[in-house]
Amino acid sequence: MKLYTAAMAPNPDRVRFFLQEKGAWDQIERVEVSIMKGEHKTPAYREVSPLAQVPALSLDNGVHITESRAVCTYFESVFPEPNLMGRDGQEAAVIEMWDRRVELSYMGHIAGWFRHSHPAMAELEAPQCKEWAEICSRRAIMGASFFNERLAVSPFVAGDRFTIADISLYVCMGFGRLVKFKPWETLPALSAWRDRMASRPGLA
Amino acid sequence: MKLYTAAMAPNPDRVRFFLQEKGAWDQIERVEVSIMKGEHKTPAYREVSPLAQVPALSLDNGVHITESRAVCTYFESVFPEPNLMGRDGQEAAVIEMWDRRVELSYMGHIAGWFRHSHPAMAELEAPQCKEWAEICSRRAIMGASFFNERLAVSPFVAGDRFTIADISLYVCMGFGRLVKFKPWETLPALSAWRDRMASRPGLA
Repeated sequence: MKLYTAAMAPNPDRVRFFLQEKGAWDQIERVEVSIMKGEHKTPAYREVSPLAQVPALSLDNGVHITESRAVCTYFESVFPEPNLMGRDGQEAAVIEMWDRRVELSYMGHIAGWFRHSHPAMAELEAPQCKEWAEICSRRAIMGASFFNERLAVSPFVAGDRFTIADISLYVCMGFGRLVKFKPWETLPALSAWRDRMASRPGLA
Repeated sequence: MKLYTAAMAPNPDRVRFFLQEKGAWDQIERVEVSIMKGEHKTPAYREVSPLAQVPALSLDNGVHITESRAVCTYFESVFPEPNLMGRDGQEAAVIEMWDRRVELSYMGHIAGWFRHSHPAMAELEAPQCKEWAEICSRRAIMGASFFNERLAVSPFVAGDRFTIADISLYVCMGFGRLVKFKPWETLPALSAWRDRMASRPGLA
Protein backbone atom coordinates (compact mmCIF):
# COMPACT_ATOMS: atom_id res chain seq x y z
CA MET A 1 0.00 0.00 0.00
CA LYS A 2 0.97 3.64 -0.46
CA LEU A 3 0.10 6.64 1.73
CA TYR A 4 -0.15 10.05 0.05
CA THR A 5 0.70 12.64 2.66
CA ALA A 6 1.84 16.24 3.14
CA ALA A 7 4.15 17.82 5.72
CA MET A 8 2.86 20.40 8.20
CA ALA A 9 -0.85 19.99 7.42
CA PRO A 10 -3.44 19.05 10.05
CA ASN A 11 -5.20 16.09 8.43
CA PRO A 12 -2.01 14.36 7.24
CA ASP A 13 -0.63 14.90 10.76
CA ARG A 14 -3.62 13.08 12.29
CA VAL A 15 -2.70 9.96 10.31
CA ARG A 16 1.05 10.39 10.89
CA PHE A 17 0.62 10.70 14.67
CA PHE A 18 -1.78 7.73 14.64
CA LEU A 19 0.80 5.55 12.88
CA GLN A 20 3.68 6.85 14.98
CA GLU A 21 1.77 5.96 18.17
CA LYS A 22 1.42 2.44 16.76
CA GLY A 23 5.11 2.35 15.82
CA ALA A 24 4.11 1.74 12.19
CA TRP A 25 4.94 5.02 10.45
CA ASP A 26 8.26 3.77 9.05
CA GLN A 27 6.67 0.59 7.69
CA ILE A 28 4.41 2.48 5.26
CA GLU A 29 5.48 3.49 1.77
CA ARG A 30 4.77 7.20 1.48
CA VAL A 31 4.41 9.73 -1.33
CA GLU A 32 4.75 13.42 -0.46
CA VAL A 33 2.12 15.62 -2.14
CA SER A 34 2.93 19.34 -2.30
CA ILE A 35 -0.28 21.24 -1.63
CA MET A 36 1.53 24.55 -2.17
CA LYS A 37 2.52 23.45 -5.69
CA GLY A 38 -1.06 22.26 -6.33
CA GLU A 39 -0.03 18.62 -6.78
CA HIS A 40 -3.27 17.49 -5.07
CA LYS A 41 -5.30 18.99 -7.94
CA THR A 42 -3.68 17.08 -10.80
CA PRO A 43 -5.84 14.57 -12.73
CA ALA A 44 -3.49 11.76 -11.69
CA TYR A 45 -3.96 12.51 -7.99
CA ARG A 46 -7.71 12.90 -8.41
CA GLU A 47 -7.79 9.28 -9.57
CA VAL A 48 -6.75 8.43 -6.01
CA SER A 49 -8.58 11.24 -4.20
CA PRO A 50 -11.49 12.64 -6.24
CA LEU A 51 -12.04 15.59 -3.90
CA ALA A 52 -8.30 16.48 -4.06
CA GLN A 53 -7.80 15.73 -0.36
CA VAL A 54 -4.60 14.75 1.41
CA PRO A 55 -4.01 12.24 3.00
CA ALA A 56 -5.14 9.34 0.83
CA LEU A 57 -4.30 5.65 1.09
CA SER A 58 -3.97 3.46 -1.97
CA LEU A 59 -4.25 -0.28 -1.26
CA ASP A 60 -2.60 -2.99 -3.34
CA ASN A 61 -6.03 -4.26 -4.46
CA GLY A 62 -6.79 -0.90 -6.10
CA VAL A 63 -9.07 0.45 -3.34
CA HIS A 64 -8.46 4.11 -2.39
CA ILE A 65 -9.32 5.46 1.05
CA THR A 66 -9.49 9.20 1.82
CA GLU A 67 -10.72 11.14 4.88
CA SER A 68 -8.13 11.02 7.62
CA ARG A 69 -10.36 9.32 10.21
CA ALA A 70 -11.36 6.61 7.72
CA VAL A 71 -7.67 6.03 6.92
CA CYS A 72 -7.09 5.60 10.68
CA THR A 73 -9.98 3.11 10.86
CA TYR A 74 -8.21 1.01 8.23
CA PHE A 75 -4.84 1.21 10.01
CA GLU A 76 -6.50 0.31 13.34
CA SER A 77 -7.47 -3.02 11.77
CA VAL A 78 -3.98 -3.64 10.33
CA PHE A 79 -2.07 -2.52 13.44
CA PRO A 80 -4.49 -3.24 16.31
CA GLU A 81 -2.04 -2.43 19.13
CA PRO A 82 -1.94 -0.12 20.94
CA ASN A 83 -5.68 0.24 20.54
CA LEU A 84 -6.66 3.85 19.75
CA MET A 85 -10.31 3.57 18.63
CA GLY A 86 -12.01 1.29 21.17
CA ARG A 87 -12.05 -2.39 22.10
CA ASP A 88 -15.83 -2.94 22.11
CA GLY A 89 -18.96 -1.21 20.85
CA GLN A 90 -19.42 1.03 23.87
CA GLU A 91 -15.80 2.17 23.96
CA ALA A 92 -15.70 2.71 20.19
CA ALA A 93 -18.84 4.86 20.44
CA VAL A 94 -17.52 6.95 23.35
CA ILE A 95 -14.18 7.55 21.59
CA GLU A 96 -15.95 8.42 18.33
CA MET A 97 -18.23 10.82 20.23
CA TRP A 98 -15.25 12.65 21.70
CA ASP A 99 -13.41 12.64 18.40
CA ARG A 100 -16.44 14.17 16.68
CA ARG A 101 -16.79 16.76 19.43
CA VAL A 102 -13.18 17.79 18.72
CA GLU A 103 -13.95 18.02 15.02
CA LEU A 104 -17.35 19.69 15.16
CA SER A 105 -16.99 21.90 18.23
CA TYR A 106 -13.39 22.94 17.73
CA MET A 107 -11.39 21.88 14.67
CA GLY A 108 -14.07 22.98 12.21
CA HIS A 109 -14.15 26.43 13.77
CA ILE A 110 -10.38 26.83 13.55
CA ALA A 111 -10.58 25.74 9.92
CA GLY A 112 -13.27 28.35 9.18
CA TRP A 113 -11.34 31.03 11.03
CA PHE A 114 -8.11 30.24 9.15
CA ARG A 115 -9.60 29.75 5.70
CA HIS A 116 -11.70 32.90 5.79
CA SER A 117 -9.20 35.29 7.37
CA HIS A 118 -5.64 34.23 6.48
CA PRO A 119 -4.03 35.97 3.49
CA ALA A 120 -2.46 32.65 2.40
CA MET A 121 -5.97 31.25 1.83
CA ALA A 122 -7.35 34.26 -0.10
CA GLU A 123 -7.04 32.65 -3.50
CA LEU A 124 -8.02 29.10 -2.48
CA GLU A 125 -11.18 30.10 -0.60
CA ALA A 126 -12.18 33.09 -2.75
CA PRO A 127 -14.37 34.79 -1.82
CA GLN A 128 -13.24 34.76 1.81
CA CYS A 129 -15.99 35.70 4.25
CA LYS A 130 -14.48 37.78 7.07
CA GLU A 131 -17.74 37.83 9.01
CA TRP A 132 -17.75 34.01 9.03
CA ALA A 133 -14.12 33.97 10.24
CA GLU A 134 -15.22 36.22 13.09
CA ILE A 135 -18.06 33.88 14.09
CA CYS A 136 -15.71 30.87 13.89
CA SER A 137 -13.10 32.57 16.05
CA ARG A 138 -15.66 33.08 18.82
CA ARG A 139 -16.78 29.45 18.56
CA ALA A 140 -13.19 28.17 18.61
CA ILE A 141 -12.67 30.05 21.87
CA MET A 142 -15.80 28.34 23.29
CA GLY A 143 -14.51 25.00 22.01
CA ALA A 144 -11.19 25.49 23.80
CA SER A 145 -13.05 26.26 27.04
CA PHE A 146 -15.18 23.15 26.66
CA PHE A 147 -12.09 20.96 26.34
CA ASN A 148 -10.35 22.77 29.18
CA GLU A 149 -13.31 21.83 31.40
CA ARG A 150 -13.19 18.26 30.14
CA LEU A 151 -9.46 17.92 30.78
CA ALA A 152 -9.87 19.32 34.28
CA VAL A 153 -11.82 16.14 35.15
CA SER A 154 -10.37 13.56 32.72
CA PRO A 155 -6.70 12.75 32.06
CA PHE A 156 -7.36 12.18 28.34
CA VAL A 157 -10.01 13.52 25.96
CA ALA A 158 -12.09 10.33 25.77
CA GLY A 159 -11.45 9.03 29.30
CA ASP A 160 -8.65 7.33 31.20
CA ARG A 161 -6.40 6.37 28.30
CA PHE A 162 -4.80 7.89 25.20
CA THR A 163 -6.93 7.58 22.02
CA ILE A 164 -7.42 9.05 18.57
CA ALA A 165 -9.43 11.88 20.19
CA ASP A 166 -6.22 13.12 21.88
CA ILE A 167 -4.48 13.08 18.50
CA SER A 168 -7.30 15.13 16.96
CA LEU A 169 -7.27 17.71 19.75
CA TYR A 170 -3.48 17.93 19.72
CA VAL A 171 -3.56 18.57 15.97
CA CYS A 172 -6.03 21.43 16.68
CA MET A 173 -3.45 23.05 18.93
CA GLY A 174 -0.93 23.22 16.09
CA PHE A 175 -3.55 24.21 13.53
CA GLY A 176 -4.70 27.13 15.70
CA ARG A 177 -1.22 28.63 15.65
CA LEU A 178 -1.87 29.63 12.03
CA VAL A 179 -4.37 32.19 13.36
CA LYS A 180 -2.20 32.88 16.44
CA PHE A 181 -4.70 31.07 18.67
CA LYS A 182 -2.90 29.65 21.72
CA PRO A 183 -5.65 28.86 24.24
CA TRP A 184 -3.25 26.84 26.42
CA GLU A 185 -1.66 30.11 27.52
CA THR A 186 -4.75 30.94 29.59
CA LEU A 187 -6.46 27.56 30.17
CA PRO A 188 -4.58 25.50 32.79
CA ALA A 189 -6.06 22.03 32.26
CA LEU A 190 -5.64 22.31 28.49
CA SER A 191 -2.07 23.49 29.07
CA ALA A 192 -1.17 20.59 31.38
CA TRP A 193 -2.68 18.05 28.97
CA ARG A 194 -0.82 19.66 26.05
CA ASP A 195 2.49 19.38 27.95
CA ARG A 196 1.84 15.68 28.54
CA MET A 197 1.03 15.19 24.86
CA ALA A 198 4.12 17.12 23.70
CA SER A 199 6.32 14.70 25.64
CA ARG A 200 5.01 11.66 23.71
CA PRO A 201 7.48 10.55 21.02
CA GLY A 202 4.52 9.58 18.81
CA LEU A 203 3.29 13.17 18.64
CA ALA A 204 6.54 14.74 17.46
CA MET B 1 -31.11 2.17 27.89
CA LYS B 2 -32.97 5.30 26.83
CA LEU B 3 -32.75 7.23 23.54
CA TYR B 4 -33.43 10.96 23.62
CA THR B 5 -34.73 11.93 20.21
CA ALA B 6 -36.69 14.60 18.34
CA ALA B 7 -39.18 14.34 15.47
CA MET B 8 -38.42 15.86 12.07
CA ALA B 9 -34.78 16.75 12.77
CA PRO B 10 -31.90 15.47 10.61
CA ASN B 11 -29.56 14.00 13.23
CA PRO B 12 -32.29 12.19 15.21
CA ASP B 13 -33.57 10.85 11.87
CA ARG B 14 -30.16 9.34 11.08
CA VAL B 15 -30.39 7.23 14.23
CA ARG B 16 -34.08 6.44 13.72
CA PHE B 17 -33.54 5.23 10.14
CA PHE B 18 -30.48 3.23 11.28
CA LEU B 19 -32.54 1.43 13.94
CA GLN B 20 -35.54 0.97 11.63
CA GLU B 21 -33.29 -0.67 9.01
CA LYS B 22 -32.18 -3.07 11.75
CA GLY B 23 -35.76 -3.68 12.85
CA ALA B 24 -34.84 -2.43 16.33
CA TRP B 25 -36.54 0.97 16.59
CA ASP B 26 -39.52 -0.36 18.55
CA GLN B 27 -37.27 -2.18 21.03
CA ILE B 28 -35.70 1.05 22.32
CA GLU B 29 -37.17 3.13 25.12
CA ARG B 30 -37.41 6.68 23.79
CA VAL B 31 -37.83 10.15 25.26
CA GLU B 32 -39.03 12.92 22.95
CA VAL B 33 -37.11 16.20 23.38
CA SER B 34 -38.79 19.31 22.01
CA ILE B 35 -36.11 21.49 20.43
CA MET B 36 -38.69 24.18 19.65
CA LYS B 37 -39.59 24.42 23.35
CA GLY B 38 -35.87 24.52 24.22
CA GLU B 39 -36.00 21.28 26.22
CA HIS B 40 -32.50 20.39 24.97
CA LYS B 41 -31.06 23.39 26.82
CA THR B 42 -32.30 22.52 30.31
CA PRO B 43 -29.70 21.67 32.98
CA ALA B 44 -31.23 18.19 33.36
CA TYR B 45 -30.77 17.41 29.66
CA ARG B 46 -27.25 18.86 29.67
CA GLU B 47 -26.36 16.20 32.24
CA VAL B 48 -26.96 13.70 29.43
CA SER B 49 -25.79 15.84 26.52
CA PRO B 50 -23.42 18.64 27.62
CA LEU B 51 -23.48 20.37 24.23
CA ALA B 52 -27.32 20.30 24.21
CA GLN B 53 -27.43 17.98 21.20
CA VAL B 54 -30.17 15.60 20.19
CA PRO B 55 -30.06 12.60 19.82
CA ALA B 56 -28.39 11.23 22.95
CA LEU B 57 -28.27 7.70 24.29
CA SER B 58 -28.22 6.97 28.00
CA LEU B 59 -26.99 3.49 28.91
CA ASP B 60 -28.03 1.58 32.02
CA ASN B 61 -24.46 1.77 33.37
CA GLY B 62 -24.63 5.58 33.41
CA VAL B 63 -22.62 6.17 30.22
CA HIS B 64 -24.06 8.81 27.88
CA ILE B 65 -23.38 8.78 24.14
CA THR B 66 -24.08 11.75 21.88
CA GLU B 67 -23.20 12.49 18.22
CA SER B 68 -25.52 10.60 15.93
CA ARG B 69 -22.82 8.58 14.17
CA ALA B 70 -21.32 7.49 17.50
CA VAL B 71 -24.79 6.41 18.68
CA CYS B 72 -25.04 4.33 15.48
CA THR B 73 -21.62 2.79 16.19
CA TYR B 74 -22.96 1.61 19.55
CA PHE B 75 -26.17 0.22 18.04
CA GLU B 76 -24.18 -1.55 15.31
CA SER B 77 -22.50 -3.57 18.08
CA VAL B 78 -25.80 -4.37 19.83
CA PHE B 79 -27.76 -5.17 16.65
CA PRO B 80 -25.07 -6.39 14.23
CA GLU B 81 -27.50 -7.48 11.47
CA PRO B 82 -28.06 -6.24 8.86
CA ASN B 83 -24.54 -4.83 8.84
CA LEU B 84 -24.54 -1.11 7.99
CA MET B 85 -21.00 0.00 8.94
CA GLY B 86 -18.65 -2.62 7.49
CA ARG B 87 -17.65 -6.23 8.19
CA ASP B 88 -13.87 -5.78 8.19
CA GLY B 89 -11.32 -2.98 8.45
CA GLN B 90 -11.26 -2.16 4.75
CA GLU B 91 -15.03 -2.10 4.38
CA ALA B 92 -15.49 -0.07 7.58
CA ALA B 93 -12.95 2.47 6.28
CA VAL B 94 -14.58 2.77 2.85
CA ILE B 95 -18.06 3.21 4.37
CA GLU B 96 -16.74 5.77 6.87
CA MET B 97 -15.01 7.63 4.01
CA TRP B 98 -18.26 7.88 2.08
CA ASP B 99 -20.23 8.81 5.19
CA ARG B 100 -17.77 11.60 5.93
CA ARG B 101 -17.91 12.81 2.33
CA VAL B 102 -21.68 13.12 2.75
CA GLU B 103 -21.21 15.06 5.98
CA LEU B 104 -18.33 17.29 4.97
CA SER B 105 -19.05 17.87 1.27
CA TYR B 106 -22.81 18.09 1.49
CA MET B 107 -24.65 17.95 4.82
CA GLY B 108 -22.46 20.60 6.45
CA HIS B 109 -23.15 22.99 3.58
CA ILE B 110 -26.91 22.49 3.82
CA ALA B 111 -26.65 23.10 7.56
CA GLY B 112 -24.72 26.36 7.00
CA TRP B 113 -27.15 27.46 4.30
CA PHE B 114 -30.19 26.76 6.51
CA ARG B 115 -28.82 28.14 9.77
CA HIS B 116 -27.56 31.38 8.26
CA SER B 117 -30.48 32.18 5.97
CA HIS B 118 -33.70 30.75 7.40
CA PRO B 119 -35.88 33.12 9.49
CA ALA B 120 -36.64 30.29 11.93
CA MET B 121 -32.93 30.17 12.85
CA ALA B 122 -32.44 33.94 13.25
CA GLU B 123 -32.54 33.87 17.03
CA LEU B 124 -30.67 30.58 17.55
CA GLU B 125 -27.75 31.47 15.25
CA ALA B 126 -27.65 35.23 15.90
CA PRO B 127 -25.89 36.86 14.21
CA GLN B 128 -26.76 35.03 10.99
CA CYS B 129 -24.19 35.52 8.24
CA LYS B 130 -26.02 35.77 4.89
CA GLU B 131 -22.77 35.81 2.94
CA TRP B 132 -21.81 32.46 4.51
CA ALA B 133 -25.24 31.03 3.64
CA GLU B 134 -24.58 32.08 0.04
CA ILE B 135 -21.19 30.32 -0.03
CA CYS B 136 -22.73 27.20 1.54
CA SER B 137 -25.57 27.15 -1.00
CA ARG B 138 -23.06 27.06 -3.87
CA ARG B 139 -21.09 24.27 -2.17
CA ALA B 140 -24.25 22.24 -1.48
CA ILE B 141 -25.03 22.39 -5.22
CA MET B 142 -21.51 21.09 -5.94
CA GLY B 143 -22.01 18.36 -3.32
CA ALA B 144 -25.25 17.24 -4.97
CA SER B 145 -23.45 17.03 -8.34
CA PHE B 146 -20.65 14.98 -6.80
CA PHE B 147 -23.12 12.44 -5.41
CA ASN B 148 -25.09 12.41 -8.66
CA GLU B 149 -21.87 11.40 -10.44
CA ARG B 150 -21.18 8.77 -7.79
CA LEU B 151 -24.66 7.28 -8.03
CA ALA B 152 -24.41 7.14 -11.82
CA VAL B 153 -21.71 4.49 -11.39
CA SER B 154 -22.60 2.90 -8.01
CA PRO B 155 -26.00 1.55 -6.88
CA PHE B 156 -25.43 2.77 -3.31
CA VAL B 157 -23.31 5.58 -1.86
CA ALA B 158 -20.53 3.38 -0.46
CA GLY B 159 -20.64 0.62 -3.09
CA ASP B 160 -22.82 -2.36 -3.95
CA ARG B 161 -24.94 -2.54 -0.82
CA PHE B 162 -27.02 -0.31 1.47
CA THR B 163 -25.06 1.28 4.37
CA ILE B 164 -25.14 4.13 6.86
CA ALA B 165 -23.80 6.41 4.09
CA ASP B 166 -27.11 6.01 2.22
CA ILE B 167 -28.97 6.96 5.39
CA SER B 168 -26.84 10.09 5.78
CA LEU B 169 -27.34 11.17 2.17
CA TYR B 170 -31.07 10.45 2.32
CA VAL B 171 -31.36 12.60 5.45
CA CYS B 172 -29.63 15.40 3.49
CA MET B 173 -32.40 15.26 0.89
CA GLY B 174 -35.03 15.96 3.53
CA PHE B 175 -32.87 18.55 5.31
CA GLY B 176 -32.36 20.47 2.05
CA ARG B 177 -36.12 20.95 1.65
CA LEU B 178 -35.93 23.50 4.47
CA VAL B 179 -34.06 25.79 2.07
CA LYS B 180 -36.15 24.56 -0.90
CA PHE B 181 -33.16 22.67 -2.30
CA LYS B 182 -34.39 19.70 -4.37
CA PRO B 183 -31.40 18.65 -6.47
CA TRP B 184 -33.10 15.38 -7.46
CA GLU B 185 -35.38 17.40 -9.76
CA THR B 186 -32.48 18.02 -12.15
CA LEU B 187 -29.96 15.23 -11.35
CA PRO B 188 -31.13 11.88 -12.77
CA ALA B 189 -28.88 9.43 -10.92
CA LEU B 190 -29.58 11.13 -7.60
CA SER B 191 -33.27 11.05 -8.41
CA ALA B 192 -33.30 7.32 -9.25
CA TRP B 193 -31.36 6.49 -6.08
CA ARG B 194 -33.72 8.66 -4.00
CA ASP B 195 -36.75 6.80 -5.44
CA ARG B 196 -35.16 3.48 -4.46
CA MET B 197 -34.47 4.80 -0.96
CA ALA B 198 -37.99 6.21 -0.56
CA SER B 199 -39.42 2.73 -1.18
CA ARG B 200 -37.51 1.21 1.77
CA PRO B 201 -39.78 0.73 4.82
CA GLY B 202 -36.80 1.56 7.06
CA LEU B 203 -36.49 5.06 5.64
CA ALA B 204 -40.10 6.12 6.23
